[in-house]
Amino acid sequence: MHTLNELIELALKEDIGSGDITTDATVSPDTDGTGDVIAKDDFILAGLDVARNVFTCLDPQVFFSTTFKDGAIVKTGQIVFSVQGKLCAILKAERTSLNFIQRLSGIATLTRTYVDRLKESNVRIVDTRKTTPGWRVLEKYAVKIGGGSNHRTGLFDGVLIKDNHISACGGIRTAVDRARKRIHHLVKIEVEVTDMAELAEALSAGADVIMLDNMTRDQIRKAVKKINSRALVEVSGGVNLDNLAQLAETGVDFISVGALTHSAKSVDMSMKIRNH
Amino acid sequence: MHTLNELIELALKEDIGSGDITTDATVSPDTDGTGDVIAKDDFILAGLDVARNVFTCLDPQVFFSTTFKDGAIVKTGQIVFSVQGKLCAILKAERTSLNFIQRLSGIATLTRTYVDRLKESNVRIVDTRKTTPGWRVLEKYAVKIGGGSNHRTGLFDGVLIKDNHISACGGIRTAVDRARKRIHHLVKIEVEVTDMAELAEALSAGADVIMLDNMTRDQIRKAVKKINSRALVEVSGGVNLDNLAQLAETGVDFISVGALTHSAKSVDMSMKIRNH
Amino acid sequence: MHTLNELIELALKEDIGSGDITTDATVSPDTDGTGDVIAKDDFILAGLDVARNVFTCLDPQVFFSTTFKDGAIVKTGQIVFSVQGKLCAILKAERTSLNFIQRLSGIATLTRTYVDRLKESNVRIVDTRKTTPGWRVLEKYAVKIGGGSNHRTGLFDGVLIKDNHISACGGIRTAVDRARKRIHHLVKIEVEVTDMAELAEALSAGADVIMLDNMTRDQIRKAVKKINSRALVEVSGGVNLDNLAQLAETGVDFISVGALTHSAKSVDMSMKIRNH
Amino acid sequence: MHTLNELIELALKEDIGSGDITTDATVSPDTDGTGDVIAKDDFILAGLDVARNVFTCLDPQVFFSTTFKDGAIVKTGQIVFSVQGKLCAILKAERTSLNFIQRLSGIATLTRTYVDRLKESNVRIVDTRKTTPGWRVLEKYAVKIGGGSNHRTGLFDGVLIKDNHISACGGIRTAVDRARKRIHHLVKIEVEVTDMAELAEALSAGADVIMLDNMTRDQIRKAVKKINSRALVEVSGGVNLDNLAQLAETGVDFISVGALTHSAKSVDMSMKIRNH
Amino acid sequence: MHTLNELIELALKEDIGSGDITTDATVSPDTDGTGDVIAKDDFILAGLDVARNVFTCLDPQVFFSTTFKDGAIVKTGQIVFSVQGKLCAILKAERTSLNFIQRLSGIATLTRTYVDRLKESNVRIVDTRKTTPGWRVLEKYAVKIGGGSNHRTGLFDGVLIKDNHISACGGIRTAVDRARKRIHHLVKIEVEVTDMAELAEALSAGADVIMLDNMTRDQIRKAVKKINSRALVEVSGGVNLDNLAQLAETGVDFISVGALTHSAKSVDMSMKIRNH
Amino acid sequence: MHTLNELIELALKEDIGSGDITTDATVSPDTDGTGDVIAKDDFILAGLDVARNVFTCLDPQVFFSTTFKDGAIVKTGQIVFSVQGKLCAILKAERTSLNFIQRLSGIATLTRTYVDRLKESNVRIVDTRKTTPGWRVLEKYAVKIGGGSNHRTGLFDGVLIKDNHISACGGIRTAVDRARKRIHHLVKIEVEVTDMAELAEALSAGADVIMLDNMTRDQIRKAVKKINSRALVEVSGGVNLDNLAQLAETGVDFISVGALTHSAKSVDMSMKIRNH
Repeated sequence: MHTLNELIELALKEDIGSGDITTDATVSPDTDGTGDVIAKDDFILAGLDVARNVFTCLDPQVFFSTTFKDGAIVKTGQIVFSVQGKLCAILKAERTSLNFIQRLSGIATLTRTYVDRLKESNVRIVDTRKTTPGWRVLEKYAVKIGGGSNHRTGLFDGVLIKDNHISACGGIRTAVDRARKRIHHLVKIEVEVTDMAELAEALSAGADVIMLDNMTRDQIRKAVKKINSRALVEVSGGVNLDNLAQLAETGVDFISVGALTHSAKSVDMSMKIRNH
Repeated sequence: MHTLNELIELALKEDIGSGDITTDATVSPDTDGTGDVIAKDDFILAGLDVARNVFTCLDPQVFFSTTFKDGAIVKTGQIVFSVQGKLCAILKAERTSLNFIQRLSGIATLTRTYVDRLKESNVRIVDTRKTTPGWRVLEKYAVKIGGGSNHRTGLFDGVLIKDNHISACGGIRTAVDRARKRIHHLVKIEVEVTDMAELAEALSAGADVIMLDNMTRDQIRKAVKKINSRALVEVSGGVNLDNLAQLAETGVDFISVGALTHSAKSVDMSMKIRNH
Repeated sequence: MHTLNELIELALKEDIGSGDITTDATVSPDTDGTGDVIAKDDFILAGLDVARNVFTCLDPQVFFSTTFKDGAIVKTGQIVFSVQGKLCAILKAERTSLNFIQRLSGIATLTRTYVDRLKESNVRIVDTRKTTPGWRVLEKYAVKIGGGSNHRTGLFDGVLIKDNHISACGGIRTAVDRARKRIHHLVKIEVEVTDMAELAEALSAGADVIMLDNMTRDQIRKAVKKINSRALVEVSGGVNLDNLAQLAETGVDFISVGALTHSAKSVDMSMKIRNH
Repeated sequence: MHTLNELIELALKEDIGSGDITTDATVSPDTDGTGDVIAKDDFILAGLDVARNVFTCLDPQVFFSTTFKDGAIVKTGQIVFSVQGKLCAILKAERTSLNFIQRLSGIATLTRTYVDRLKESNVRIVDTRKTTPGWRVLEKYAVKIGGGSNHRTGLFDGVLIKDNHISACGGIRTAVDRARKRIHHLVKIEVEVTDMAELAEALSAGADVIMLDNMTRDQIRKAVKKINSRALVEVSGGVNLDNLAQLAETGVDFISVGALTHSAKSVDMSMKIRNH
Repeated sequence: MHTLNELIELALKEDIGSGDITTDATVSPDTDGTGDVIAKDDFILAGLDVARNVFTCLDPQVFFSTTFKDGAIVKTGQIVFSVQGKLCAILKAERTSLNFIQRLSGIATLTRTYVDRLKESNVRIVDTRKTTPGWRVLEKYAVKIGGGSNHRTGLFDGVLIKDNHISACGGIRTAVDRARKRIHHLVKIEVEVTDMAELAEALSAGADVIMLDNMTRDQIRKAVKKINSRALVEVSGGVNLDNLAQLAETGVDFISVGALTHSAKSVDMSMKIRNH
Repeated sequence: MHTLNELIELALKEDIGSGDITTDATVSPDTDGTGDVIAKDDFILAGLDVARNVFTCLDPQVFFSTTFKDGAIVKTGQIVFSVQGKLCAILKAERTSLNFIQRLSGIATLTRTYVDRLKESNVRIVDTRKTTPGWRVLEKYAVKIGGGSNHRTGLFDGVLIKDNHISACGGIRTAVDRARKRIHHLVKIEVEVTDMAELAEALSAGADVIMLDNMTRDQIRKAVKKINSRALVEVSGGVNLDNLAQLAETGVDFISVGALTHSAKSVDMSMKIRNH
């Protein structure tokens, strides 16, 4: 929550800097008004809280109201939210607020598209660490709102042993043993494997979760059979909307999709002011 | 530059938090290594400086090298840059560094696509304030690297009088007069107009730049003729790769494109470690 | 606004540090009181907002009241403002609050003296970047309150090409061309010139504003004639209250005066407490 | 020291903001150069360290050199200091650096004028808390460089019981007793008195230092006699260059002068660049 | 006060980080509740304010109530304080709040034990600078609450010349003279001495306070006699509960005890939630 | 790492504040020297890095050397570490540096005492969240150095469902189910139980780790038998050096001990300066 405030302050500073010279010159500081934010797309809404925080960070007297909750389907032309208060504050915060909610709603909307492809299945779509720097918590929240699940938050709350770690310490077993010894007892260990030999080693080392990296569907199926519920199974790499359903049928538990956060487009909204 | 450091620190904190438990458990703090970042796409490169800063922010001893400069065309399979130093630092900074450069290169690459459509023309593609909060300066830099031009940086270094300002103060002339009186003498005044009547008023009020908002090509042509070089002309709204060339032929000076920053996808790269 | 808060916090910290040991030892934390700030000089008032913010930053419960607005003429003996609340908070913030408003009122008062000399004229008195580090926005605000106009805020919102830039890039034309190409289209270009040859080059390069640096009145008159409304004209250097009116008669648009901010004296006020 | 860095960063941010658009457009980032700062006045120099820090804060590679030390007398036309390095960094930091050293040298120079009037005497000129907010430590340093002495740094490192404290707690004796009981044993207690009755009470309460506030010279002389070395004596209020010598002859130990910091003018310097 | 907020934020961040995943998963954000903090020990209470601030820093709507004041004796089983509000906020702040108040109460309780040994005497127990880094002001406050007195807050508000300073500048007299000349006139000078020769030099140099370091009781008695009220006397080193009373009988003014802050144990409390 | 720097800066600021007036007055800024830190106790050393960082944070030129590593046994009289450089910097950082390393070594030393009691056993001693606010990472590090293991770092990297959570959401099963659904797949779930009924429910809900809270040894033995390796087992509450060995014999995996961090005493060291 603290980190979010830092990002909001950074964002307001970079936009307003030494002052909004247009608004300060043309709008009287005493003028009240209402801004209605209108959807220009159909989308899954995410980010109402941060959108509100941007306004209240600039002026705690701005009153924010909405008929929606995060996760709602919004249709073109609907009013997403309204803000009421000093027009100067509303106009200064407008762009920054919209930049936040448009991006987060874009992520939620894209995630929903992925999740909808797996309706019949228990497989979970999970995000990755390929998020916009500074936005980790926000973007992971948007993924959840879109129906996806989160992977670990960062490097601190889950062990994921990758090829580079393995080569650096001389083998999967060594890596897993070292991790087991040094991490606390509420964290699980995931190991990334690329073939059946590595898989065998990871299983015998006692990995809690196996990540099958860039494998073909056939390899995945074989791997799932071999694992046989001794560990959770995650698929990673080369996932897209076209092969998603087929990947899900292989019996894995999780499919991770970097595109949810690194390639989502912003949805479109715009604010219309009513003077009082 | 200071703001960038704040963003990098925010980004490293959100990813590393209380520690990279995988690397700390599996890789000795004394192990040296080299990481090569390899292109998995063709793209226009942007963000080498920030990519390097992420590593040196974590460990000033990491040595960064590259054969490219920002703006270069990178082909799939080429080494974008290499980092050499303590493996622990390299592994901790890897994801954050790549998250920066992949997004910035994505923006530069998309911008280049737009710019290439206007090769024969003097019309400039310009960005907007629809940037990722916290990333304003970075994303505007990437637009420039891609061959685009920048619009004002934020609310502080240019006057852009929009519909909401006009209705708040009672008319275009009043708005322009107030701005002229209150701003310092090195800033120009741009006015957004949506029809010929507003255009006439803006011109007579002495606007330095006219923004034609969401007009048809016919309207734009008529407006350009009317303006007759008394002001610079910018087109905004509804721009895409398909109508870009035709818009450029109307005689305007600038075409602003929000998509450059709000809808670019990250390009793909990955790091491969060589132990020493 | 944010930057102002940083300065206020810095100022309160440097004065209060680990605690106001006198007040904490002698005044009970429950004692209420009112402090009246009394003018010991005649002056133009500037800085009521920041004076209030210092108190409310320390204790949001302090109630601030005044019969004046910034820009008012205050006479010796009048009550500038009053604060009511916990005496401890009032005593701790008193000196810092007064240090702000006394200095800002000093700048407004000095500016008014300059402006009054030009009553009959349309020439504008403008400030410079010779402000107290940390105080840029505050001091420029005080200049405005005193009837002056602002020059650019800083290096970011206006191009001013000076002798050092010209010599570094090989000539006025090159400098102007480079600037025109790289800056966005809402910023104007000002060029500093010291003789008629430079003036000719600046005009032909298309400078929007010309700064005549340290010229004699005769030179200035000649330059104004030569410029002939093709650019705005600013005079800089060697300006004082004695030659101001004569400079204004030369036909220039702006006269910039560093002394407004770098050599203003604080006006005198003091606080008197009434216990409740 | 930390606080100083905060002020320097604040100052650089307020001037450079999103970038020095003139320098970035006209000067190549690779160009080296030397800037010589030349005195345009005679003055006592103060602030070399902070002037250097401004440059190195922006670019640690800038090399700073000078033949002077703080406290030196600098004559018009002399080179105060030189900086060598990337021209871009030098031009961006120039104004902020000069704004610091010009103001501090102004304070040192004014202080020296006061101190010189007391050459024959042992009386010390001391400063007050009427300093520029954010600049406390810097300005007190400049006073010392000018030959003055410092009073307490802030509210935290000395007890000064004033009229408002006395009325709030019901009398001088109560105030002194409470302070004695609550402060630690390395801090002295000063009491402000305005007449002989208060003086008597302060002495009998055991004040370590007596401040004679706004008394006539006759009253001061009487007070000094009465105190008879049982406490140190400070005179405050209504001090100026004209009555300074006479005040010193009354036998007091300290004369405090708010004007040293709240009404000093900046001295004049300017930077001249030599390209390499 | 500001510094305390920084420490509270640091503490909440280190505990909550990217989120309290247990509470967020199991407790609805709308659930209200009351938490009663119950004493599991007998102790002197210290730190109610900071305990409350931790909760309100996280959620200003949490209502804090208590029947105690700092300094009260709390018995096992009593309710120390209660907090009422959103259960989520209460659960997230609980541990941090208790960690503060348990440690501060531990210090107050230990201090009281020392102070109680000196009931009949006027000698004051004072703390040292051997405090927990980041906690200086808090721990010195707890010492006061326990009945002890504070020594100087830090290096800035009192001169204490120790062996290392003396050897660095060549003797006690030189050290005292230099200090007298450079410090302001509201700070006293204390000198640490280890034998009678040093004591003689310190006295003749005019030290305001003498610290007898690691002397035997006989030496102390002799020193006190020699000092003969010309300076305050502090004993330091080797103090414990067993020799405290005897040290007090030597006639010294202050006995400083590092253990008050560097070796106090936390007292025990725990929170019990009542759902609404 | 970043958080540590914040704590070090906080600590230096609270001690040095506006300046070390003793050192600045008595020691020339040019004087070099060496400080040897000597052990006055036998202890397990922990905190060399932070001790060094305090010095280099103040002056990067201070050279730090030691013959020990964290975890070493240090004997009374040995030199723990030495610092060489400007005497002023060394004297200013001395107390803060020692305050850190003395406390951390105290924790490591106390932890070792606990660990030594379990030499023959595989049971791990783990710490708790009862750490000094601001010191979480440091103190957990010291526990590790002393031979203990860490529990979760904070609320963010492990699920621990306690009585308050259970009552808030209506039962152990609901709590575990909700957690399982909302947390990511690399975090384990621990449930605190106080009797056999709760234990049965936690096991059937699929808890990964069971915390037996304040049970008798008999109950613990029964619980371990019932759990039968289906979950890891942690004992908490009422642990001390006397019952530790017996608790270990019950077959549990972890024993958590709050005293390691909330009740450790600092070990004793002091610095002796050699001038150069």
